Amino acid sequence: MKILVLNCGSSSLKYQLFNMDDESVMAKGLVEKIGLSDSILTHQPANQDKVKIETSIPEHGVAIELVVKALLDEKHGVIKDMKEIDAVGHRTIHGGTSFTESCIITDDVIAEMERLVDLAPLHNPPSILGIRACQDKMPGIPMVGVFDTAFHQTMDAAHYLYGLPYEYYEKYQMRRFGFHGTSHRFVSIRCRELLGNPEHSKIITCHLGNGSSIAAIVDGKVIDTSMGYTPLEGLVMGTRCGDLDPAILPFLMRKEGLDADALDAVINKKSGLLGISGVSSDMRDIEAAAADGNERAQVAMEIFRKTVIHYIGAYAAEMNGVDAILFTAGIGENDIANRAAICENLSYLGVEFDKEANDCRGKEVMISTPNSKVKVFVIPTNEELMIARDTAALVK
Amino acid sequence: MKILVLNCGSSSLKYQLFNMDDESVMAKGLVEKIGLSDSILTHQPANQDKVKIETSIPEHGVAIELVVKALLDEKHGVIKDMKEIDAVGHRTIHGGTSFTESCIITDDVIAEMERLVDLAPLHNPPSILGIRACQDKMPGIPMVGVFDTAFHQTMDAAHYLYGLPYEYYEKYQMRRFGFHGTSHRFVSIRCRELLGNPEHSKIITCHLGNGSSIAAIVDGKVIDTSMGYTPLEGLVMGTRCGDLDPAILPFLMRKEGLDADALDAVINKKSGLLGISGVSSDMRDIEAAAADGNERAQVAMEIFRKTVIHYIGAYAAEMNGVDAILFTAGIGENDIANRAAICENLSYLGVEFDKEANDCRGKEVMISTPNSKVKVFVIPTNEELMIARDTAALVK
Repeated sequence: MKILVLNCGSSSLKYQLFNMDDESVMAKGLVEKIGLSDSILTHQPANQDKVKIETSIPEHGVAIELVVKALLDEKHGVIKDMKEIDAVGHRTIHGGTSFTESCIITDDVIAEMERLVDLAPLHNPPSILGIRACQDKMPGIPMVGVFDTAFHQTMDAAHYLYGLPYEYYEKYQMRRFGFHGTSHRFVSIRCRELLGNPEHSKIITCHLGNGSSIAAIVDGKVIDTSMGYTPLEGLVMGTRCGDLDPAILPFLMRKEGLDADALDAVINKKSGLLGISGVSSDMRDIEAAAADGNERAQVAMEIFRKTVIHYIGAYAAEMNGVDAILFTAGIGENDIANRAAICENLSYLGVEFDKEANDCRGKEVMISTPNSKVKVFVIPTNEELMIARDTAALVK
Repeated sequence: MKILVLNCGSSSLKYQLFNMDDESVMAKGLVEKIGLSDSILTHQPANQDKVKIETSIPEHGVAIELVVKALLDEKHGVIKDMKEIDAVGHRTIHGGTSFTESCIITDDVIAEMERLVDLAPLHNPPSILGIRACQDKMPGIPMVGVFDTAFHQTMDAAHYLYGLPYEYYEKYQMRRFGFHGTSHRFVSIRCRELLGNPEHSKIITCHLGNGSSIAAIVDGKVIDTSMGYTPLEGLVMGTRCGDLDPAILPFLMRKEGLDADALDAVINKKSGLLGISGVSSDMRDIEAAAADGNERAQVAMEIFRKTVIHYIGAYAAEMNGVDAILFTAGIGENDIANRAAICENLSYLGVEFDKEANDCRGKEVMISTPNSKVKVFVIPTNEELMIARDTAALVK
């Protein structure tokens, strides 16, 4: 079975074609600058060189046509006929409370996604564009939607409600949804395997990248997660502020004369590691600057570590214990120094950190000692594979 | 030595006269509705009946005069001459970063407090009014300011900075200050005594009342606390929302057309337990309604417990361990059910909860078993006594 996985942004489209017999990637690629005259398709067949195609790609439908053409191409293609693609799995962001798991995309599903655009004005419209483009250019091929929020919908009201007037929950679904769910699910499933698939388990999954979130997972079900109504809440991120005294916002409105859009831009795009350090939103740049003696970069790094430690501790308490903690995504998989600083601060939980094991990047490894009461793992995430697996399971 | 302690609000004034020989309260009272025609002074001499005096009290100076008159009164007074009052201790709220401990009030101190009004527009002006009134009506009697923020000023930048553009910190001192410091200090000093004043200690102080905050205290120094730039941040409170996805505020501005003042009112006065439950801001009402089957009241109570557990866990992690946890203030001292629900969720830390010992209100008690790895106490707070002690120490 062959599954094409699509992740559509407003001006970009990422794809991977999986052969589900061995879960191998046959080809992957990226379309950038959709809507501009100098759009680029970068196509990477497995075990072959990258191909770059620069051409005008006015909209997502044309992008899909070009992706299919690249997959079928005589030289750098990997299939002979579009019909070899058994299904398309779409990374769909916001499923609200409507989608608690992945599902076959029908007209009703699209209508519900459109209804949810209010909750995800930046993310849901490109997903819908991608789905419509596939309906048009790949007719008859079944599609599956894999929502970033779905895995978190096991939270109960005590964890998803905010301390706000209840009417806002009724009017606007103002509640914690959580994001990165596909990643938290993928790595937590693998973590439970590594623990021997026990009947009961308490796991803290730390997805640390440009966007970061942490989840508390009891027996495979999320009970709490750090991102909320939007992906802003929780940890300090590349350019997002994370947790904040909310009273700061009215103060800034008065003092700086900011309106809603300007406030949104400040807290989503000018804050976080970038805002504190003034150096960069990228942890690697922050660490380099900190090593060079840049004090604001040092503080930015310390704040990042503190907030990760804060949430790990909070979730250990909310679950009344923890069996395993895992790190994933860009920072989680590759940042040896941050992982060490975080784990060395968790000995009170029974974490016995293995410094030598931690000295690696981007691969699955246990970074606690074999006798550690709480196991700590690095588990590379693979959202595309999770989407392919869900898609294969649903169209079988 | 006799110390008068004053806590001035915009239309109220609380006082207690302490005899510092035995730290006994000679008299205490409350002036309400200052500025209205039907102001009331309620005066309570020790071991005597309350006296109520209804009269017009147009401003704080007149209130001070009436307090002094009540203290000197032939029938219900407790001193013969105003000169018996050795000093006045003022509860001053916001000391910013300028005041890291209590201090004798001088013209420079008043000027600095005036400079800080921007940070505490609701709280600092009444304190200043009270100080000026005392200067006027009690000339020559030394005064001491005891700041609610002072005890938290040992936090380092990794704990006091937000993930915001650094320029806001430079322009507006936009950082975590913390509040309830006088209470956290009082109970943490007592807790260290109860632990035998060890050289090293990690304590989590839970001040849970209508306003609630939690602090993490290492060797007597605060390293983190849940209230921030304002007293809004952190736990869900009577009418304050506590932690929130900050992106909710621009959303509400757009959808509800709220301006800065309206937003402030929503998050400070219409949220929290009141907003969630729709019943009341008072935990006792919430518990009664929850017992009657009111689901929103039940959720409000669960959210309160969850956020307390969240912060206890987070601070245990930030300190890499905890020796003692204590509860104080209205809910902390009196709410048996909430204390039980919180403590029973902390066995992972080594808390062995003593249900029987917990079955009491408003008094100092250890509510963990003698063998509990982490000790848990109820310690009634006494901010007025702390202010009196600081005042006595400074004017000695």
